Amino acid sequence: MKQVFSILALYAVLDAAPLEPAREAVAGRWITTSEITHAMLENIQPRLAFRSGVTAEEFAAWQADVRAAVKRLFVRPEYLASDRAPCLLTVERRDDCRIEKWEAYPVRHAAVRFLVLIPPHREGVRLPAVLCIPGSGQTKEQLASPGGMADFYACQGYIAVAVDHPGIGETADPAVSEEYLARQLLEMGWSWLGYSVALDQAVLDWMKTRADVRADRIIISGFSLGTEPLMVLGNLNPDVYAFVYNDFLCRTLERACVLTKPGKDGRRPKINSIRHLVPGFWREFDFPDLVAALAPRPVLFTEGGMDRDFNLVRAAFSCIHAADRVEIHHYAAFQNPASRELLEHMPERIDRDEFFRKANVEPSRHGFKRDLVRPWLKKWTDTHESDGNTLPGYSLTNG
Amino acid sequence: MKQVFSILALYAVLDAAPLEPAREAVAGRWITTSEITHAMLENIQPRLAFRSGVTAEEFAAWQADVRAAVKRLFVRPEYLASDRAPCLLTVERRDDCRIEKWEAYPVRHAAVRFLVLIPPHREGVRLPAVLCIPGSGQTKEQLASPGGMADFYACQGYIAVAVDHPGIGETADPAVSEEYLARQLLEMGWSWLGYSVALDQAVLDWMKTRADVRADRIIISGFSLGTEPLMVLGNLNPDVYAFVYNDFLCRTLERACVLTKPGKDGRRPKINSIRHLVPGFWREFDFPDLVAALAPRPVLFTEGGMDRDFNLVRAAFSCIHAADRVEIHHYAAFQNPASRELLEHMPERIDRDEFFRKANVEPSRHGFKRDLVRPWLKKWTDTHESDGNTLPGYSLTNG
Repeated sequence: MKQVFSILALYAVLDAAPLEPAREAVAGRWITTSEITHAMLENIQPRLAFRSGVTAEEFAAWQADVRAAVKRLFVRPEYLASDRAPCLLTVERRDDCRIEKWEAYPVRHAAVRFLVLIPPHREGVRLPAVLCIPGSGQTKEQLASPGGMADFYACQGYIAVAVDHPGIGETADPAVSEEYLARQLLEMGWSWLGYSVALDQAVLDWMKTRADVRADRIIISGFSLGTEPLMVLGNLNPDVYAFVYNDFLCRTLERACVLTKPGKDGRRPKINSIRHLVPGFWREFDFPDLVAALAPRPVLFTEGGMDRDFNLVRAAFSCIHAADRVEIHHYAAFQNPASRELLEHMPERIDRDEFFRKANVEPSRHGFKRDLVRPWLKKWTDTHESDGNTLPGYSLTNG
Repeated sequence: MKQVFSILALYAVLDAAPLEPAREAVAGRWITTSEITHAMLENIQPRLAFRSGVTAEEFAAWQADVRAAVKRLFVRPEYLASDRAPCLLTVERRDDCRIEKWEAYPVRHAAVRFLVLIPPHREGVRLPAVLCIPGSGQTKEQLASPGGMADFYACQGYIAVAVDHPGIGETADPAVSEEYLARQLLEMGWSWLGYSVALDQAVLDWMKTRADVRADRIIISGFSLGTEPLMVLGNLNPDVYAFVYNDFLCRTLERACVLTKPGKDGRRPKINSIRHLVPGFWREFDFPDLVAALAPRPVLFTEGGMDRDFNLVRAAFSCIHAADRVEIHHYAAFQNPASRELLEHMPERIDRDEFFRKANVEPSRHGFKRDLVRPWLKKWTDTHESDGNTLPGYSLTNG
């Protein structure tokens, strides 16, 4: 009856102007798609977000679930190929260091090149090794050149391996953007990051078999964009020894929800390149959860982030009594805790500058923090030449 | 030994310039990511591509597999909400036609508005109905306005329902692009098309329950972008009666593989908006397969395409003796078969203009082809007021 009355009432205003679209139609219901999708995103509860207060057994079960989800999101066996062993292309020398260039064939149709920097060492001694993953736009050649990340590790006595991101350096095609490549991979049900990880995984597997590498002392060092493959590889490979996370730690779902302040053109800036798009990722976890799941392996954070996120990571490591394996350094301006905002949630409708400020980031000082890495390396792999040592509990290095 | 020799030989060229990256490293193996991803795309064999020569039973099994894959790719029950019935907002009159504006609540946080055009009819008579899905940038109000697609169907005696695409018209937010919305939905493990279909599905479900609608005579009419939800809804809803496909029929995977000619800036143009991105879609099927799976329900194609693709659709309908349900019209310039190139494969490295020419498309004449729809409607729903008729074999309309 109410419905009929309503129709009759409306007949009375025939030819009246249509109702103005309300921003909110009925409580919690929106007319504009942007409000709807925003509310959907905000309401995502990642299935595998780390919850503190779990037992060691519960932690192990959660970690296994994270690993399974990482595998499901990123690994596509149907595109892999393993019929061909990696092949040495060239060898150069720089000072005492040998630089090898290799080619691997891990993915169908792909020949993937990487550089290996081998510092001088006694015959028969196995060295710890570092897989160096560059930042956006950096090439493996830049990492390997004097002063680059890989060169740094080689100078510290590590076998340093430098890889390229897809579509960069030697793998670049000037006619094809990285967005385009990411789009193709997404169409195939994969992702730019998944593809990148498949290439890096082949290099990592190969490193483990090298006679001069201590397979139980392989570190992954990721700079900027390179921290993304680091997290994925770290979760896929429980045998990786430790991690250098050289970027600020970020909740990317929250970032997408709050970076909504329109620019000067009145438009909301794009989330970021679809290179970062991994469909369904946020339904499972976010970056702090992936790092938490690396426990108990040592992680060095060189460019800070929000205390909230580090508390989560520390809580995770504490579950298995490994809180001392997390080492956190903030940007210079935010080293004093009093200088940091202790936010539980980022405010909405901010721009990138404000986001960085509240996340304790100094974008102009973003760079590889070798001075923090050096002592950390010494702490965790100092005894690398003591071949007889074993790994349990990392006690060999921790005294 | 060969390896060792190779190393020694290379030592001899120490400090030589690094090898020039070969376009192709070894047979079938590429260095540049763009060659690799291109080869990967080209080698996709869609799992559910229609293969002619199957029996009626095999066809039914294939059709069920297509339906299951469509459901998996597009339907996300976790984002749906059905706790609230659609609500009538306003009623207007235009000439003899009643225009209702309704609001439905099919997806969490969403209030979704649509227009219903009801032509004059005798009390108690049920009318056939058409769900009208607009092209890119068109609004439901444009479809409903005099001369629009929905108005056309209402003038033919059909209850015509007009919907909006997400982010268009009333649902638009001037600060947020459709790309942005698509990105958010992809992040959630959904897609722009999947979300769009969820809204349309609710409207379709509601149409089926309307007392003045013949639920067994519901047609979906899609213009341009609107053909995409048409194909998905058609496969999800075996009870939809017939389809007006108002765009050219296209293999989108092939299009992405051949539209690689760089533009004036030397860059390959982007594939298209990520509104069209449905991760993994091409691994299952392409548009001609989805249309083939609509058999035996009548489909009207108003803007042609390649004979190759229509042969596939006709072959599918023939499997179940329904070839006469497919009606194909080409653009004026390509109506004479002699004017059409009978290609089995599009050539590579072409631009959009050449692609359209070879696909028998006249882009400037893209528009709703009411003159083709009118006789087709008469053919398939002429007896719509004979309420007692039943549906099997569509014999009631086919004489």
